[in-house]
Amino acid sequence: MPTEWEKMLAGELYDPYGPELSAARRRARDMVYTFNLTRDADKAERLRILGELLGTAGDGIWIEPPFHCDYGSHIHLGEKVFFNFGCVLLDCAEIRIGPRTLLAPNVQIYTATHPLDPVVRASGLESAKPITIGADVWIGGGAILLPGVTVGDRAVIGAGAVVTKNVPDDMIVAGNPARIIGDTRTSSQKTG
Amino acid sequence: MPTEWEKMLAGELYDPYGPELSAARRRARDMVYTFNLTRDADKAERLRILGELLGTAGDGIWIEPPFHCDYGSHIHLGEKVFFNFGCVLLDCAEIRIGPRTLLAPNVQIYTATHPLDPVVRASGLESAKPITIGADVWIGGGAILLPGVTVGDRAVIGAGAVVTKNVPDDMIVAGNPARIIGDTRTSSQKTG
Amino acid sequence: MPTEWEKMLAGELYDPYGPELSAARRRARDMVYTFNLTRDADKAERLRILGELLGTAGDGIWIEPPFHCDYGSHIHLGEKVFFNFGCVLLDCAEIRIGPRTLLAPNVQIYTATHPLDPVVRASGLESAKPITIGADVWIGGGAILLPGVTVGDRAVIGAGAVVTKNVPDDMIVAGNPARIIGDTRTSSQKTG
Repeated sequence: MPTEWEKMLAGELYDPYGPELSAARRRARDMVYTFNLTRDADKAERLRILGELLGTAGDGIWIEPPFHCDYGSHIHLGEKVFFNFGCVLLDCAEIRIGPRTLLAPNVQIYTATHPLDPVVRASGLESAKPITIGADVWIGGGAILLPGVTVGDRAVIGAGAVVTKNVPDDMIVAGNPARIIGDTRTSSQKTG
Repeated sequence: MPTEWEKMLAGELYDPYGPELSAARRRARDMVYTFNLTRDADKAERLRILGELLGTAGDGIWIEPPFHCDYGSHIHLGEKVFFNFGCVLLDCAEIRIGPRTLLAPNVQIYTATHPLDPVVRASGLESAKPITIGADVWIGGGAILLPGVTVGDRAVIGAGAVVTKNVPDDMIVAGNPARIIGDTRTSSQKTG
Repeated sequence: MPTEWEKMLAGELYDPYGPELSAARRRARDMVYTFNLTRDADKAERLRILGELLGTAGDGIWIEPPFHCDYGSHIHLGEKVFFNFGCVLLDCAEIRIGPRTLLAPNVQIYTATHPLDPVVRASGLESAKPITIGADVWIGGGAILLPGVTVGDRAVIGAGAVVTKNVPDDMIVAGNPARIIGDTRTSSQKTG
């Protein structure tokens, strides 16, 4: 029999309120609480917490508090990944972010989803789909990435975009829902 | 003569800076401040504060800090309502949320509005319109609900949607402004 | 030779991680940290911090915590400017906001931008464009203002709008990207 944790990572319906997953979320919330109350001068303490919290913490990463996540252990950050203020990662499934990718303030990355059927949803069962973001991506402030999307290398996500579909390498997307509006290889600078 | 509080709840222009309303907001801000600094293990303390802060706190509700509201006393939550991180409810008018409704991170519910006429707006007078959300609703992350809207039972609001009009029972809406994109009774799972 | 700070304010590519700019951001982060932990009753302390943090703090301004900015010294607020919960101002270039302008919760004002060319972006160099907002403007909750935009006097920005272009005096804009949907001089109240 798979555990609830195994079902969660396999993309199946699972119960998030069993003892194992509840304990894992409490571990993350406690670490995030401490992280969010560190001061800017506490660089070593911040990096120590991130090294313990995250599944992978590449060299040279930086996360500005406040930051929120569900487990932390499902988040894998390549080197020099940077998150500005207020990013939220619901990491029920794995979230992989490539090196040098930049998240502007309040970027939201949600792997968690609920059943559309209200009767199943009321049971409390949930599911999750992994999100993969390439290298050298720039995600504008307040952008939202939905469960299961993949963002290619060097892509640019406009501020406030709601990303519902995969974004190919080098593409610039914006809007709600996000659509391709340019190509970083041919565009002059227009995106904020 | 109606008080400023009575005018506010009646949807008329009111002065939010009189002593009665200022004191009510300070009470809420003090309680929210304490709530937002509790740890995940302080479940009893969180529920104690919510029971005192909110107009109605149904059995089994849960709010993840940080959370912000204006008065608290105008918020009525049915049983098992759940708010994830960062939700903001401007409850100048009443906000009623039915049982088992789920709010993803950073959902914004605004009853407060300002006069469009800049001269009237500069006077500092405001008004507010109540927001009613049904049972078994799922509101996606970062969605914004505007003053006066009603969301029907079992509806699904997509992440990042800006809800400017009423949402009928069972409908799935998304976009800015939000438009109907499906029906939970006939859709296969597509919404994150 | 211009300093990195001079290049930043001139809209040229600059290195944000030199000692001078790093120290200026740390100063602001320390003051913002203290500000965000004040209580509602600490009105004098909040105003004292804002007077020291901001480039210009007009009479009668008010900012609800939490609030975040990069430098503070590039933010110039006219009298009676009001920010509700959670506003984020990335003030790498100057941000000027006219008197009596109201920011609803979670308004995001971003002067900071990154090169679209991923090779240049990976170098860590950035640039910034100033943002100017007129008098008596009302900016709805969750709205995002992109680098370089100007918002005219008495304009109204709808909740959740993503403002990519200048907004003329008296116009009402909404959507992602924001488009003109009305004129405050002729509209009856429809905007939340």
